Amino acid sequence: MTTEQVLEQAKAAKGQLALLSAEQKNAALCAIADALEQDSAAILAANERDLANAGETINDVMKDRLRLTPERIHAMAQGIREVATLADPVGKVIEKTERPNGLQIEKVRVPMGVVAIIYESRPNVTSDAAALALKSGNVCILRGGKEAFLSSQAILAAMRKGLVLVGLPETFINMIPDPSREGATKLMTATDYVDLLIPRGGAGLIRACVEQAKVPCIQTGTGICHVYVDEAADLSKALDIIENAKTSRPSVCNAEEVCLVARKIAPAFLPLLRRRLVEDRAAAGKTPVELRCDPEAYAIIGGTPAGEADFDTEFLNYILAVKVVENVEEAIAHIAMHSTHHSDAIITESAQAANLFTAAVDSAAVYVNASTRFTDGGEFGLGCEIGISTQKLHARGPMGIEELTTYKYVVRGNGQIR
Amino acid sequence: MTTEQVLEQAKAAKGQLALLSAEQKNAALCAIADALEQDSAAILAANERDLANAGETINDVMKDRLRLTPERIHAMAQGIREVATLADPVGKVIEKTERPNGLQIEKVRVPMGVVAIIYESRPNVTSDAAALALKSGNVCILRGGKEAFLSSQAILAAMRKGLVLVGLPETFINMIPDPSREGATKLMTATDYVDLLIPRGGAGLIRACVEQAKVPCIQTGTGICHVYVDEAADLSKALDIIENAKTSRPSVCNAEEVCLVARKIAPAFLPLLRRRLVEDRAAAGKTPVELRCDPEAYAIIGGTPAGEADFDTEFLNYILAVKVVENVEEAIAHIAMHSTHHSDAIITESAQAANLFTAAVDSAAVYVNASTRFTDGGEFGLGCEIGISTQKLHARGPMGIEELTTYKYVVRGNGQIR
Repeated sequence: MTTEQVLEQAKAAKGQLALLSAEQKNAALCAIADALEQDSAAILAANERDLANAGETINDVMKDRLRLTPERIHAMAQGIREVATLADPVGKVIEKTERPNGLQIEKVRVPMGVVAIIYESRPNVTSDAAALALKSGNVCILRGGKEAFLSSQAILAAMRKGLVLVGLPETFINMIPDPSREGATKLMTATDYVDLLIPRGGAGLIRACVEQAKVPCIQTGTGICHVYVDEAADLSKALDIIENAKTSRPSVCNAEEVCLVARKIAPAFLPLLRRRLVEDRAAAGKTPVELRCDPEAYAIIGGTPAGEADFDTEFLNYILAVKVVENVEEAIAHIAMHSTHHSDAIITESAQAANLFTAAVDSAAVYVNASTRFTDGGEFGLGCEIGISTQKLHARGPMGIEELTTYKYVVRGNGQIR
Repeated sequence: MTTEQVLEQAKAAKGQLALLSAEQKNAALCAIADALEQDSAAILAANERDLANAGETINDVMKDRLRLTPERIHAMAQGIREVATLADPVGKVIEKTERPNGLQIEKVRVPMGVVAIIYESRPNVTSDAAALALKSGNVCILRGGKEAFLSSQAILAAMRKGLVLVGLPETFINMIPDPSREGATKLMTATDYVDLLIPRGGAGLIRACVEQAKVPCIQTGTGICHVYVDEAADLSKALDIIENAKTSRPSVCNAEEVCLVARKIAPAFLPLLRRRLVEDRAAAGKTPVELRCDPEAYAIIGGTPAGEADFDTEFLNYILAVKVVENVEEAIAHIAMHSTHHSDAIITESAQAANLFTAAVDSAAVYVNASTRFTDGGEFGLGCEIGISTQKLHARGPMGIEELTTYKYVVRGNGQIR
């Protein structure tokens, strides 16, 4: 099967999938979950071959991402069953108006059609993405990392068994057969076939999609997230929030990368910050955070002198850039220059500072007195997440199944002309 | 001023514009409208020079599009005053939830930031687009057709006078100083500057944007619109709707280009259609419609034999492609293959056929017993229109000022960590 054939099959399938009822889609999801568990042995064997093929070309972190276990396959199946419990967004009437000429206009939620997802080495994205696409009425075309190619193929085969078992065409879920870069490029430029492209992965993948995509594409995930500690901050809240935002999972996009501190409280706060992130953590056997300080912060607490690039870097590691600013206005200006518009927070007890910050900071999620780590579909109550949009077109922030839909206008008349 | 400087100035201005109140924006719009009228003489003189420069390189239709008159300038000013009366979408809370952990999450409507609009030779688009962008809190960067360059510059100068008069920076409204193709290309690829690009114009411009744009872009306007006359149609309604959809303004994107007729009623309906669109119009001194018929329709009413391309052409003229289909299912299949997903209609008294058609036809606007010509921001009650989206990402169908906004999540806590 060529990539072109996959595109044709996906396009041909979208009309049928768009018209399925919630019950039919949920039955399919449950059958897919069961099939995944039943095919565990085949999937694990394929995964072993992927790991063996990769050999020493990938590091331990990547190996861990790639590795499947019976528990992980069970978790994937459970994830699919959870998607089945979500409300179906398709068919919802968003707005309804009657015009003076009697035309009845309904704005109705409908699937996108064909959704393409390009991702990297986690094989579980294969089942997550397929389940979310199916639930939202979309045919999906998946293109996973080449390291996980055999695992993804085995997962695809199981999911398609589930579809066939409930009498649905296997072409509701598709995969690009070409693990080379060319396969991804074909997907990015398939303007007559792909209604929405979502890249899920590192900055390089996102950039490649923005540069090369000719199909509608959502930029996801890069997060240079800031926490600004205002002069009116509760310092104890600030310490808790910063330790959480920086260290609870440093490798994810909603982790804090930069701490801005108001000049007035810097002499009191920075030593506490250093103790909490460096000394206390080291004493407790946890990884201490490397503080990369601007000259003013460095004069107070030492650490590593920050280079210019440190305020524009997504470290994804136990590193925090620290800078002293005059006040909330200067914090807002710094964030406007350096943020990736993902998630930024202010710690303050001042309603005025909080309101100014939330109005002026132009990011997908703007926080007052809470950790940036909450930017997540589950935490926001969406029930799931296909990615976090850092662009402004269509969807912003965590994207759930509703964000995988569009709308159309259905207009009913009795002979109206204009 | 270089294009790069214009981009920098626009980006620098967006923070201030986003925070303006509705009152401030409305006052600015009224001042801009007044300034346009006061500067009429200068604008008309610039327009004369544009017309003289164009000379015989453009045809009469294009000259008419390009030509300004005192009445047209007054209409532009009135258009701006009407935009001032629209409700301000910015700041509207779309959703509000409290999570179990106490986090208060608000989804708030905010401006896009910098909106770029590339258009062709109508100078009035300069003021229309600027007004809609300003009202929705967006800094705009305009790039009009080179034929209208001096007119647009004069309109820009007047609008900027209005801004300065109410104490606002003139950089809220910007224009690319380079009328060459390179200016447009720079705008399409200014990923750090442009939050949304809207091309307004013919198929060539739209295609160039889809091909070259690296900034988020909305595909607008190409319309191969179908009217399907079902076997259960009221034939008199069908004739009125088709004549309106085809002939009330053939040059616009929501005009009908293709008529599909159910086989069962074709022998009765097609002769009526021919009489209405050809003989009756000719007798009344109106332009008759050229019917390009598939073999089956041709056997019944003659006309011009349709070539294959005729079912994939936006004629924008008094030409209608006509085809006989078996039933509503075959009409749906034909539309899926040939429609540009703009506006498609069914004429039927059967609720079952209407429901099947509206569910299965995947177009921005799907009509039952009404003319496709209603796909328009004003007719849909949006109060205005920046364009008609034929893509599915972000906005679909007529785009008003709300479609020039995005949202952000504002999350308030009291120390929550994850």
